[in-house]
This record gives sequence, C-alpha cells and structure tokens, in this order.
Amino acid sequence: MVTQKGIALYSSLKEKLLNSIKNGTYKEGDQLPTESELSKKYQVSRTTVRLALQQLEIEGFILKKQGKGTFVTKPKIEENLSQGFQSFVEQMTHLGLEPYSKVLELTLIPADETVAEKLQLKEKEPVVKLVRLRYANKEPHSYIISFIPWSIAPGLINEDCSNSLYKVLTEKYKIQIGHDIETLEPILTDEEVSRFLNVTVGSPAFLLDAVIYSTANVPIEYAQDIIRGDRTKFTLKRHYQNNNLL
Amino acid sequence: MVTQKGIALYSSLKEKLLNSIKNGTYKEGDQLPTESELSKKYQVSRTTVRLALQQLEIEGFILKKQGKGTFVTKPKIEENLSQGFQSFVEQMTHLGLEPYSKVLELTLIPADETVAEKLQLKEKEPVVKLVRLRYANKEPHSYIISFIPWSIAPGLINEDCSNSLYKVLTEKYKIQIGHDIETLEPILTDEEVSRFLNVTVGSPAFLLDAVIYSTANVPIEYAQDIIRGDRTKFTLKRHYQNNNLL
Repeated sequence: MVTQKGIALYSSLKEKLLNSIKNGTYKEGDQLPTESELSKKYQVSRTTVRLALQQLEIEGFILKKQGKGTFVTKPKIEENLSQGFQSFVEQMTHLGLEPYSKVLELTLIPADETVAEKLQLKEKEPVVKLVRLRYANKEPHSYIISFIPWSIAPGLINEDCSNSLYKVLTEKYKIQIGHDIETLEPILTDEEVSRFLNVTVGSPAFLLDAVIYSTANVPIEYAQDIIRGDRTKFTLKRHYQNNNLL
Repeated sequence: MVTQKGIALYSSLKEKLLNSIKNGTYKEGDQLPTESELSKKYQVSRTTVRLALQQLEIEGFILKKQGKGTFVTKPKIEENLSQGFQSFVEQMTHLGLEPYSKVLELTLIPADETVAEKLQLKEKEPVVKLVRLRYANKEPHSYIISFIPWSIAPGLINEDCSNSLYKVLTEKYKIQIGHDIETLEPILTDEEVSRFLNVTVGSPAFLLDAVIYSTANVPIEYAQDIIRGDRTKFTLKRHYQNNNLL
C-alpha cells in the first residue's frame, strides 16, 4: 500500500514522463534514463519511479527489455470512428500497415441463445463460427470471434477466410454489407486471449461487440472483437447537441 | 498458473454465466448459486468456478458481498456515440439518471506543454484547471480534469462549477459550443483514481481525451475523462464504407 503522498508523487511523475513522450522529448525507440537517474532528476524515491514506470508500461507507452533498459514504444494505431467501418484488410491497408489473419477455428455449430438473438435466428440453428487472430505488420492486433448464419453463406467453412471475410461474403455469396451496431467496453485480457495477443494477463483492451447487417437489414455477422489497448486508440468527432434540458 | 485445459474451462464457464446474465436467467440483484453449487452444476472444479467469477466481477457483471454471496449488478449505462455530444448533466438527465458533480479542484495555473498545445496557447499562459468527480444516481461515474483558457472565461474560478460547466460557459461567457475531437483508450485505474471512483486498483476504464471547440473553431476546453468501465459502455452505428481496396 502506498501512502496518499506516495500516490500523488507517482501519478505526478507518470504525467511528467508521459508528457515527455507525447511532446517528443523521448521518441519511439528511445531508451529512458535508468530508475536511479530518474530518481535523482525528479527528486523522488526509486519506489515512486518504479510505480510510475509500471503504470506507463501497462498503458503501453514504454517497454522494459530484460537487461537492456526501458524503451519508448511505437505510437498506437488510430482508428477513426467518425467514418464508416471497413474490413480489417481495408482499414490496415489504408493506414499503411500490412494486415494478416490467422484462422484459429472455422466450424459449423448450433447457435446458442446469445448468438441466436443477435443474428435473429432460432436457438440451435446452424451458424459458422470463425475465430481469427489478426496481425498488423506481423504484430498481434486483435482476437475476433465471428458467427455467420449458415443459411446466408452455406459452404463458408470450406472457404479461405485468412484474407477478408467481407470479400468472401460479397464476391462469393453476393451479400451487400450495409451497417453495423457496435458496443465498446474496456476489459482486462484473460489468460487465453493474453497468450494469443502476446500481452500480460490483465492488460487493458477494447471489447468491440458488433452485429453487422446487409443493405436489406438482415444480420450477417455477430462479432466479439478483443483489440489490444496498448496498441490501439479510437478517435471521434462529435457536434454539440444542445437539448435545452439544462 | 492455470493449464491450457484449465483456461479453456474457465473461459467457457465465464461465457455460460455471462449468457445467463445477458438473457435474463439471472437478473439484476439476483444472487448467483454458490461456488460449490456451480461446481456441481457445470461439472468443473471450484478453482475453475472461482476464476470465472473473478473475471465476471472485474468486468462489472457481478459483485461479491462479504458473507452474503455473489449478486448480479445493474446493467451498464449506455452512451450513444453516434449522436452529438451533450453536457454530462444533459446526458444523464436524458437517461433518467440524477447527475451530480463534486468539484475537487478549481485553480488558475500556467499551461504545461501538453495543455498549451491542445488549447493552442503558449506554454505558461494561464488556464483554469477544474477537477471534478461525477456521479450518476449517487454512484461515482467518472473523474474528469478540465483545462479552460483563462482568456475566454476570466473569473471562472469564482463560479459554481458543480452543475454544468457548459451552462456557465454559454450563459455567463456567451461561448457557443461547436464540436469536439475525442480519443478513446482502455486503461487501468491507478490508486488515486480508484479511490475516487470507488473501484479496485487496476479496474478497466475508458480514458476519454477531448478537445472542445467553439462554433468559431477556438479550443475552449481540454478534458481528460476517466470513466468507470464496469458501469459504462458506448454504442455506435456505422455504415460500411467500401473503398475497393480489396
């Protein structure tokens, strides 16, 4: 347990270091000063320095390399939520990153209650379950479980889903993708997902839960997408809506 | 350390229990069966049950009450990102919740490099720093630090900011609020913020970083808003944008 004063000190040091990263004093790949150098420079204890560095590491701004020191990590990948959504392949290509999907599971299963409700099916109706680990520039980016009604894409389990699922749905099954409804929650990665995403258990991540509809308003996919929080952030532009409720 | 099989078992049990909560088998306020009852029902070890319950608790779906059992918590507050943004007071009122803000700090300080850049000021120019703890129906909802250029709202530090800041800016300072640019990241709460939000240290939360502009496109506020992840989720509707990059 850290005292009140201790908390204030490490929060304040964390902010100072983060500002130095954000304003470019410490750039991507730069090595940070050692704990004892930081302790001297900011006139705080090594415990305070250690706590501040721990928090920065867990938020993905720095990375400790065993026996080598502490380094500033790459800036996060920014996804703009104000635009329409794209396939992962389109999105990464647009950002100049190389997308890759590893198919972990592609099977036909009976829909459970949740999946059936999301896809407007009856329970136990057949759905394709597709689990993928997605990479951006060879680095794990997200772990996504998709459910697609068998009836709209029979034979999907025999297709190559390591590229774009939307490409297969559009070209082979002539489905026109319309819109989606997404829910965004912050979660902690559990042991299974942490192993796939190559992060510490309990790292912050986004859970993006989405139902995708065709232009005819038929649900075509229900996806649970766990996106690394240390490598991704979302941006958004919104206009002020004054309802005069004040 | 849990074995591969152990991980699969607790993830699967967690999903089953979550489905039972989401489909209403276990409703808000309901008591869950005991660990030994769940262990018997699902034919898994008590360790597996404990891990599944831990994960559900950390994600905010259930709450353990010492000596009383485990209960299903209230559904999360949903904020729709597809609409324009509102003041916290307007937003909560719209959702039928009672808003309240406790002012923790209201001071005049020189802008540091980050704040100056966000507000398009020079470093050390005076800004009002306003720190608030926000409540929805008497429950801590978010911890928000705002910076407002002194020049657009001189005397703000003498105003009552426990209601809507936007109301003060609009009515007293005749500022017309235009739009904002937001960044959304998942973070873990540190000790200081956890204490204010009444959550366990290291709980999942949203960090919503926003610059708010007037209709004349002048930055009027830079805010760092830490929102409880166990009580809030964001929803969004997006249209498919096919760039034919495939």
